[in-house]
Amino acid sequence: MTSPSTGRALPETERTRHRRLREQGSLDRAALDAVLAAGFLCHLGVVVDGTPMVVPTVYGADGGTLYFHGSVASRSLVASPGATVCVTVTHVDGLVLARSVFEHGVNYRSAMVYGTPRPVTDPEEKLAGLRCLTEQAAPGQWDYARRPSRKELAATALLALSLDEASVKIRTGPPDDGDGADAELGLWAGVLPLHTAWGPLEPDPALPADLAPPAHLADRAASPAGRPGA
Amino acid sequence: MTSPSTGRALPETERTRHRRLREQGSLDRAALDAVLAAGFLCHLGVVVDGTPMVVPTVYGADGGTLYFHGSVASRSLVASPGATVCVTVTHVDGLVLARSVFEHGVNYRSAMVYGTPRPVTDPEEKLAGLRCLTEQAAPGQWDYARRPSRKELAATALLALSLDEASVKIRTGPPDDGDGADAELGLWAGVLPLHTAWGPLEPDPALPADLAPPAHLADRAASPAGRPGA
Repeated sequence: MTSPSTGRALPETERTRHRRLREQGSLDRAALDAVLAAGFLCHLGVVVDGTPMVVPTVYGADGGTLYFHGSVASRSLVASPGATVCVTVTHVDGLVLARSVFEHGVNYRSAMVYGTPRPVTDPEEKLAGLRCLTEQAAPGQWDYARRPSRKELAATALLALSLDEASVKIRTGPPDDGDGADAELGLWAGVLPLHTAWGPLEPDPALPADLAPPAHLADRAASPAGRPGA
Repeated sequence: MTSPSTGRALPETERTRHRRLREQGSLDRAALDAVLAAGFLCHLGVVVDGTPMVVPTVYGADGGTLYFHGSVASRSLVASPGATVCVTVTHVDGLVLARSVFEHGVNYRSAMVYGTPRPVTDPEEKLAGLRCLTEQAAPGQWDYARRPSRKELAATALLALSLDEASVKIRTGPPDDGDGADAELGLWAGVLPLHTAWGPLEPDPALPADLAPPAHLADRAASPAGRPGA
């Protein structure tokens, strides 16, 4: 991720104000950048015929813009190009195991971005956006794999969403019932952390047997996952 | 998950028909049950003032019903109790690294459920639904932790969503460009698998030092994650 902005605050709007669990909310730009940099899959929410549709899709975040494929929700985005979308990125960090069922929860980091996506038509920006999207999921592949041809570029619908209206929610730490009456129950409480990790590379069976993977993939296959920016 | 139904097909509706990537779509009930059983976090899509809102939240799936907390999207669901929602559950299984950037993608399993959530008001069903939700994320905790009091139960808004209108999309296997012109480029191609795993338990600092975790948590802390049904 380029140009991480620290200390800047995102504007608070009617949609991004934290009503519930206010203590976990953040409008800090650096927090948003960090959550977006830590993943590559978002859930895109659009409205189709008045009902919501939530589609998983890959994204790339670069400075103030989030890029994603326009084809994933084509019915909606083609039908109403000026419509607002909501893009949500969530990382689950662990289960919060409290003394009471009522206080059980999840440690997580989540970002919600609202806005009206702009179709990227300029060929140069489209290449840059696709590079951003590709490198977010698979760093090193833009320089290694064959880049899009003019025909492929024309067939790709890329959308750009401003990060100006966004909010972050983060929960960390132990359960909240460590100092109440339930603490006297003698029950174990704490957090069961959840991690993601890359497994060993699985070569395409169509490959020649002696074709070794490039270093950027071989190195990654032995590393913790989901944190391309770390 | 109780009563997995094998061989049953979900009805195809205008919303669940697979338009894109048809080969990956499924309306098989067993496939839906498997995707839902493999996780505990969904992305809930609702419409608020005409714009979509996508909120991460925990769920429980039991037979034909998906349970989730009504408080997560209170603004919308309280304002329009008859509104349709979309619940999406996604598991990322790996990166598909093709010879061309254009063919890059993700191996994943995803379920989308559409419907109008029903508020659960019967105390017995509410307890059963909360048990389902708790056990999906943290098996064994319903019997171990303190169960909800009458007051806590009254303060909990639980929603039930039928699984009757749902669809599944799954992508597995190597990239699709193993037999085209790009196969001659001499580039490595294949899949970089992504796994989730539980880490070591983190005891609440407020606990007495000699309080050992129960077996169902200690055992799980050393196991692959995200597959409570497996």
